[in-house]
Amino acid sequence: MADPRFFHRAGPFTLEALAAISGAQLADPSSGARIVDDVAPLETAGPNEVTFLANLKYVEAFAASRAGAAFAAARFASRAPTGMALLIAADPYKSFALAAEAFYPTPPVIPRRAPSAIIDPSASVPDDCEIAANVVIEGGARLGRRCQIGANSAIGANVEIGDDCRIAANVTVSHCLMGARVVLHPGVRIGQPGFGFAPDRTGPVTVPQLGRVIIGDDVDIGANTAIDRGSAHDTVIGEGTKIDNLVQIGHNVVLGRGCILAGQVGIAGSTRFGDFVMVGGQVGFTGHLRVGDGARIAAISGVFRDVEAGATVGGIPVVPLTTWMRQIAILQRLARKKDGS
Amino acid sequence: MADPRFFHRAGPFTLEALAAISGAQLADPSSGARIVDDVAPLETAGPNEVTFLANLKYVEAFAASRAGAAFAAARFASRAPTGMALLIAADPYKSFALAAEAFYPTPPVIPRRAPSAIIDPSASVPDDCEIAANVVIEGGARLGRRCQIGANSAIGANVEIGDDCRIAANVTVSHCLMGARVVLHPGVRIGQPGFGFAPDRTGPVTVPQLGRVIIGDDVDIGANTAIDRGSAHDTVIGEGTKIDNLVQIGHNVVLGRGCILAGQVGIAGSTRFGDFVMVGGQVGFTGHLRVGDGARIAAISGVFRDVEAGATVGGIPVVPLTTWMRQIAILQRLARKKDGS
Amino acid sequence: MADPRFFHRAGPFTLEALAAISGAQLADPSSGARIVDDVAPLETAGPNEVTFLANLKYVEAFAASRAGAAFAAARFASRAPTGMALLIAADPYKSFALAAEAFYPTPPVIPRRAPSAIIDPSASVPDDCEIAANVVIEGGARLGRRCQIGANSAIGANVEIGDDCRIAANVTVSHCLMGARVVLHPGVRIGQPGFGFAPDRTGPVTVPQLGRVIIGDDVDIGANTAIDRGSAHDTVIGEGTKIDNLVQIGHNVVLGRGCILAGQVGIAGSTRFGDFVMVGGQVGFTGHLRVGDGARIAAISGVFRDVEAGATVGGIPVVPLTTWMRQIAILQRLARKKDGS
Repeated sequence: MADPRFFHRAGPFTLEALAAISGAQLADPSSGARIVDDVAPLETAGPNEVTFLANLKYVEAFAASRAGAAFAAARFASRAPTGMALLIAADPYKSFALAAEAFYPTPPVIPRRAPSAIIDPSASVPDDCEIAANVVIEGGARLGRRCQIGANSAIGANVEIGDDCRIAANVTVSHCLMGARVVLHPGVRIGQPGFGFAPDRTGPVTVPQLGRVIIGDDVDIGANTAIDRGSAHDTVIGEGTKIDNLVQIGHNVVLGRGCILAGQVGIAGSTRFGDFVMVGGQVGFTGHLRVGDGARIAAISGVFRDVEAGATVGGIPVVPLTTWMRQIAILQRLARKKDGS
Repeated sequence: MADPRFFHRAGPFTLEALAAISGAQLADPSSGARIVDDVAPLETAGPNEVTFLANLKYVEAFAASRAGAAFAAARFASRAPTGMALLIAADPYKSFALAAEAFYPTPPVIPRRAPSAIIDPSASVPDDCEIAANVVIEGGARLGRRCQIGANSAIGANVEIGDDCRIAANVTVSHCLMGARVVLHPGVRIGQPGFGFAPDRTGPVTVPQLGRVIIGDDVDIGANTAIDRGSAHDTVIGEGTKIDNLVQIGHNVVLGRGCILAGQVGIAGSTRFGDFVMVGGQVGFTGHLRVGDGARIAAISGVFRDVEAGATVGGIPVVPLTTWMRQIAILQRLARKKDGS
Repeated sequence: MADPRFFHRAGPFTLEALAAISGAQLADPSSGARIVDDVAPLETAGPNEVTFLANLKYVEAFAASRAGAAFAAARFASRAPTGMALLIAADPYKSFALAAEAFYPTPPVIPRRAPSAIIDPSASVPDDCEIAANVVIEGGARLGRRCQIGANSAIGANVEIGDDCRIAANVTVSHCLMGARVVLHPGVRIGQPGFGFAPDRTGPVTVPQLGRVIIGDDVDIGANTAIDRGSAHDTVIGEGTKIDNLVQIGHNVVLGRGCILAGQVGIAGSTRFGDFVMVGGQVGFTGHLRVGDGARIAAISGVFRDVEAGATVGGIPVVPLTTWMRQIAILQRLARKKDGS
């Protein structure tokens, strides 16, 4: 179970209740009254716990699991060990997420304002917000209802923040309009000037950065990620987009809805994504590109040209994924030949 | 126009005044009395606004722009739409930057010392500095005239900072001597010990890091960038050098004057750059290298050997840019062949 | 010598004393009574200083050095200039590290609690800890003896920290159990939720992150590095492991003992390392991999598959180091051919 020092558990739940919460179907409806009191990973789950199978690598662990119940795709039902109740799900990982959220709901916001918080009198901070120690909120900033601001974070002048946002510790936000239910993890930097310098014989000349950062509803931004404000246009993060840690987003970048960017991705200025783009870790994008809806880019790739909607690409520079695999195989074959083997 | 909640506009200006400010020439001297009241990008600029063309990708947008005036190179004059006044510039981006700075001057430093700032009595902080809430300045630190220190930043013992430096929120600086007009964006880390460990059977042994970080005048350092202090030599950032977000600079690295480093670049220990080196995003440099004056390294490259002055290189490992292009073409051709296509 | 504004020097020491401290042997035992009063790099060391030779690149500088004494491997003894006393060491860098630590010992912890520190009454903070200005320590957190917490850092509820830990400024720690003598540099982020989202038509669904971060004794974590807590398992950093700046460590990652990770490395979720793994800068690892004991990965590589114990690999994707070198040579030869040269 999760360490009770850090997590508070709800429940228990019947499998019937979990099926309803998670959108899954009980393989054996007669198991609906069985009770589970926690979620757990395949290897450690016991008879009173529910687990999940979502990655082919773990089918053997699934077959050997002692879990009392599991979310899994229908095609793996035959691999389930005896006595495991199955919750058949189109997306077992998503169903498990919903069940886990039922057992461990996000802690509620506790309305309070730390005495050490420094809030400008012209800022608007509803009474139901939770403002931690040493928070600094500058003049004209407007927070929505039930927002949380973590210790030592700084919210700049005239920033607007929607309802139910959760901003962690040591975050800075300026020049930003933010929707509802946005989550910023520790050390996030939003709204600093973009990197705009015109080369010159006497040294680079600074270009004023006159745009903002516009963040949609339900965006999640990882620890120490930096999102620069636009230079003339705005930098825009579409609703529901999730960004991992240590990601760099340059000025004027526009991301669509529901994109997923893994850790250490970098996107240079003025590049635009459509909706539901998925990007693996450490991928770099040069500036002024277009990346179409639903494109998928493999981890550790480099993108120097536009990517079409729906394409799956990889490599430096990126090519269609199957071409990349072939390039890798060819290079390895050539290296063997030269060796005479 | 820029959002007035975040930016304060000056002006309006005549085109004659803008030409003088920006070093541009009016294509039609009779247009000198025309007035513009803002800067704007090509797509949104209207008849009272001035824009610019600096990237070939945007020539069509330039030809279709409703802007009243534009900075552009002479060779694009024929593409300008009717009625657009032209400000001919050798470097339109630089000229636009100077015009934008005239419309939106950097806000002045407002002398004040937040009551919550904790300044050691032995630190020297001139009265004309602007010290934000919760700033911590340790003993012996010396700030220049008109410096700004943002909320929750920490300046370590005996650090020296020149005149007119602007240090944003949540920054830490230690073991550093800094010139004038240096800009540090949020989350910058300067002066922590470099990564020095001698491998050992019983676990890595820590090597004391006894150098400093020396930062020249007019340096700009991006959000969450980290610059370690030297181990025995100093880490040195030459004057006028501009560093983007999330860059890693190891101990004893020496960068020359006027270098430009894009986001997520990493430079391992003891590598030395000449002046005016330009580095694209996500480039990595191994340690103990020499990179000559004016070298240019394409984004997402890996540098394992010295780079000659004036060279333009790309790839992992880097080769001359034209060779890299050929390598890419060859790999793609081989991959097609194997496919029988 | 190190700048006395930032470093306090001990000594002087006889060569005999330094040999004992560092595990080195005097090449000429009669030199044991000679006195040195500082450490210094090869190029600047003078007759009263001790230096070291650990990198072949610097043999010429060694031969020309004016240093009074040097740590070096026996095979370089013949290259030493006249008058230089030699301290023969199996690992000269490690021996030098121990000597440098004798001259510049880590400053002691000074028991104090800044008046501006905000410590929850239910937290346990021994009197011999040094708690800087504006530190926030939440309820139930437990610090060991002689811990240092830097300005503006935030320690979350119920976190446990061992003896003699040194946590720098602007750090955040939550959901973490930490051993003794751990060093966290400025801007480190520990314990935030991992990046867990299940893709969905209506936008990604958040997966609760219910694990912790477990950090062993003697771990060192670089500036602005982020280590996410586990999702169900814990994220684990083995004892003695050293991590450089701006590294990303995903949820459920397990690192063994004595690993060394250079700057900007990224490790995706659930990947596991054995002991004494060495990773160059900017290397990326996809998720769910196994990397065996003692594996070495060259800088700027991409790891998409398991790596065997003891292997030395490089490239994107990684192959054995010699194969990678051959691949590079082949590509360069093909590019020349196409050129007709």
